Amino acid sequence: MDFAVKGEVLLKANELAEELKKGKKLKFSELIYTNQGDCHALGQPPITFLRQVLAVCVYPQLFNNSRIPGDVKRRAKTILSGCLGSSMGSYTDSQGIFAIRKHIADYITKRDDGIESKPENIFITDGASPIVRLVLSLFCHEVGGKPSGVLIPIPNYPLYSASLTQLGLYPAGYYLDEEKNWGLNIKQLKKHLEESKCYCTPRAIVVINPGNPTGQVLTRKNIEDVIKFASREKLVIFADEVYQENIYDTDSEFHSFKKVKHEMGPPYNEVELISFISVSKGYTGECGLRGGCAELDCIDKEVQAMAVKSASVLLCSNTVGQAALSVLCKPPEEGDESYEEFIREKCCILNGLANKATLVADKINKIDGLKVNPVQGALYAFVKIDMPENAIKGALKKKLSPDGLYAFELLEETGIVTVPGSGFGQKPGSFHFRTTILPPFEKMEVFMNKLKKFQSDFMKKYK
Amino acid sequence: MDFAVKGEVLLKANELAEELKKGKKLKFSELIYTNQGDCHALGQPPITFLRQVLAVCVYPQLFNNSRIPGDVKRRAKTILSGCLGSSMGSYTDSQGIFAIRKHIADYITKRDDGIESKPENIFITDGASPIVRLVLSLFCHEVGGKPSGVLIPIPNYPLYSASLTQLGLYPAGYYLDEEKNWGLNIKQLKKHLEESKCYCTPRAIVVINPGNPTGQVLTRKNIEDVIKFASREKLVIFADEVYQENIYDTDSEFHSFKKVKHEMGPPYNEVELISFISVSKGYTGECGLRGGCAELDCIDKEVQAMAVKSASVLLCSNTVGQAALSVLCKPPEEGDESYEEFIREKCCILNGLANKATLVADKINKIDGLKVNPVQGALYAFVKIDMPENAIKGALKKKLSPDGLYAFELLEETGIVTVPGSGFGQKPGSFHFRTTILPPFEKMEVFMNKLKKFQSDFMKKYK
Repeated sequence: MDFAVKGEVLLKANELAEELKKGKKLKFSELIYTNQGDCHALGQPPITFLRQVLAVCVYPQLFNNSRIPGDVKRRAKTILSGCLGSSMGSYTDSQGIFAIRKHIADYITKRDDGIESKPENIFITDGASPIVRLVLSLFCHEVGGKPSGVLIPIPNYPLYSASLTQLGLYPAGYYLDEEKNWGLNIKQLKKHLEESKCYCTPRAIVVINPGNPTGQVLTRKNIEDVIKFASREKLVIFADEVYQENIYDTDSEFHSFKKVKHEMGPPYNEVELISFISVSKGYTGECGLRGGCAELDCIDKEVQAMAVKSASVLLCSNTVGQAALSVLCKPPEEGDESYEEFIREKCCILNGLANKATLVADKINKIDGLKVNPVQGALYAFVKIDMPENAIKGALKKKLSPDGLYAFELLEETGIVTVPGSGFGQKPGSFHFRTTILPPFEKMEVFMNKLKKFQSDFMKKYK
Repeated sequence: MDFAVKGEVLLKANELAEELKKGKKLKFSELIYTNQGDCHALGQPPITFLRQVLAVCVYPQLFNNSRIPGDVKRRAKTILSGCLGSSMGSYTDSQGIFAIRKHIADYITKRDDGIESKPENIFITDGASPIVRLVLSLFCHEVGGKPSGVLIPIPNYPLYSASLTQLGLYPAGYYLDEEKNWGLNIKQLKKHLEESKCYCTPRAIVVINPGNPTGQVLTRKNIEDVIKFASREKLVIFADEVYQENIYDTDSEFHSFKKVKHEMGPPYNEVELISFISVSKGYTGECGLRGGCAELDCIDKEVQAMAVKSASVLLCSNTVGQAALSVLCKPPEEGDESYEEFIREKCCILNGLANKATLVADKINKIDGLKVNPVQGALYAFVKIDMPENAIKGALKKKLSPDGLYAFELLEETGIVTVPGSGFGQKPGSFHFRTTILPPFEKMEVFMNKLKKFQSDFMKKYK
């Protein structure tokens, strides 16, 4: 079980940061962290309305503060009314405060043009990771003498591969098609599924849209194909849609799996679907608050009852993360006191990310030996390295993966912290690194220039 | 897998609450919830200093608010300095913010008269439950062809039994000695251990002190005996000490397992120990914030490295719960602006709980057919019911456990919500219910009078 986002490269970076702090002279004066989708760590400011709501919720004396806007107080009142004893310090329902689950369900219903979402099917947890883990654990038992299998994309966010390993489930990888903008190829998917049946009984398929680490936004056609495939093969779909607010490409649109499957009608509307939302991403970027949730749609009743029981053992998720979800799903509306400020802040963040998404793809595709698909959404670019033979040999000698060697040398030469592609999985013989688009624009430009110089030196070194 | 604290009796209570809301006439006008250690839900106020620190952390504009005391601002500054980008919205180190782990380690060091605690060994999670679960999962693999076993007290807080079942570990129950104030009988412990070896390889022992659901405070002698036993049998000790601030009996004292084992010297100081702390209990009672932690002491290095990896997959715990732990472990000191208010609030809460602890034991022991040990600590009384034969037969007919029948009838007749003893485990042929000591004093008196009347009617009914 390994988790590359917090892996060896980051440990080395932390060491170098300590050395810099102690005044040691390195080849760079500061580290540029692009290893994690940690928005606020890289300077993204919080949404004022969101933080004001949290402050009033935790310290209700602020109801008397005249500088706090009325809509903030109204929201805090709604949230506290949903808490026993009107305190954020009380346990909530295991699935989360009902009023907040209603905000989430209303948000989904509106997003999906009226296709109904119900609070009963929403499960709030401390970030999206625990609910991903919880629903995976529901598939833990063997079926037909074999462990249950889950189809996961390669590359994928390593929460999936790590959790499956921990839970004793079989991770059946399927390759995303890099040549076709990281889309899903259904013929390939079928091939991987059949192969996996030697080792497991496939039960579910994970799709990450917009993609992590790949940054693509799936087309509606591709989503329909996946739904048909899942329906034929009786697979539950896990739709990781935590980046649904992060769409930059003006020709791309976010289509939720739920909306598409219901619009496809029978039998596809009956496909079992679990989809995820998080306050850690989008324009809020509140990773540290740990607020995330899942919607269970058409899930077998016994399985859902088991999910309720599993959630109850850990009592409930943190109330502050729940309150943040309330704001994400029910932001200020036109006419509300905080509306204009909210829109200004939201647009500023999303426009900034869109500019950096374009910058990264443009600049990298001009660098000899590197190639990247357009960053249509999410927070990442997954960059292909045309790895010189000598670098592959050199890595072997150092007992590193070739992309591990690349990421370490990039770090040591420039201070740029990335994650090697092997941490996410990649087609054998192909090599990548993942970067985020999160550092401030000026720093992204520095990053791109440093990368260009490094890449040129790297090619010379291993020519 | 079942979790009685959120079980059938609570579901029924929620139904009754709905009926009352709709105006239906029941035998009572309000429910008295004593099913969960949910302090704020039952009116316990938050500690002002704690909530002020949280408010400034989530909304740093409050640094400019002149009504917020200086020590609050200084603490918020310390916490935010430990956050990347100075934001509570950033991911923290997987084990928790270093500065806060330092506060916790200093607290433990001071509590244990100078026996050193290190931030490196502290793991902060969203409440204590996830870290209990995480450390249990480290024992998941089979040893000698048998599943690993964990000795757990009967009765125990069902987090343990439910988690062991979920993780595929063998729960090897040992009975607490009700006649000896719920102490641990080492001869019995040895017997249970040997019996369990038919089914598992015993690896660890769970001890809850102060006790949940039993309310006892272990004597130092009893703790020494357990440490000797664990040393002989090579067991890791899981010391659930989340109620360490909740000691009411003036003749009882809290002794941490860590302090005792280190004071015992070799070989006992080398016993592997994992102990738990939480903001949900004590005088803070902040259940909803989800802040808890474990200290790993003398744990095998490879196991500890695995714990670090497991923690990293879920990224980090919520920053607000972490900040609350900072306050719990480093409250205002004499001379600080908030000191007097803090002490007043803390004493008021703990004195109130102490009064109710006495009240509950005194009143219940005067009721014919009920018996309870003194509530020396924690938040609970585990009351023994002298169950009439006819009630046992009646329960059988209704497919209920006898104490389930008792709890349901108590609920339906009086509106009092308890948890049947069978949800925690109990000696065969003995019957109990668990109540908290949390409702306000006046309501506790009402509760006791209602219970007395109910018990008398129950005895008559099933005579």
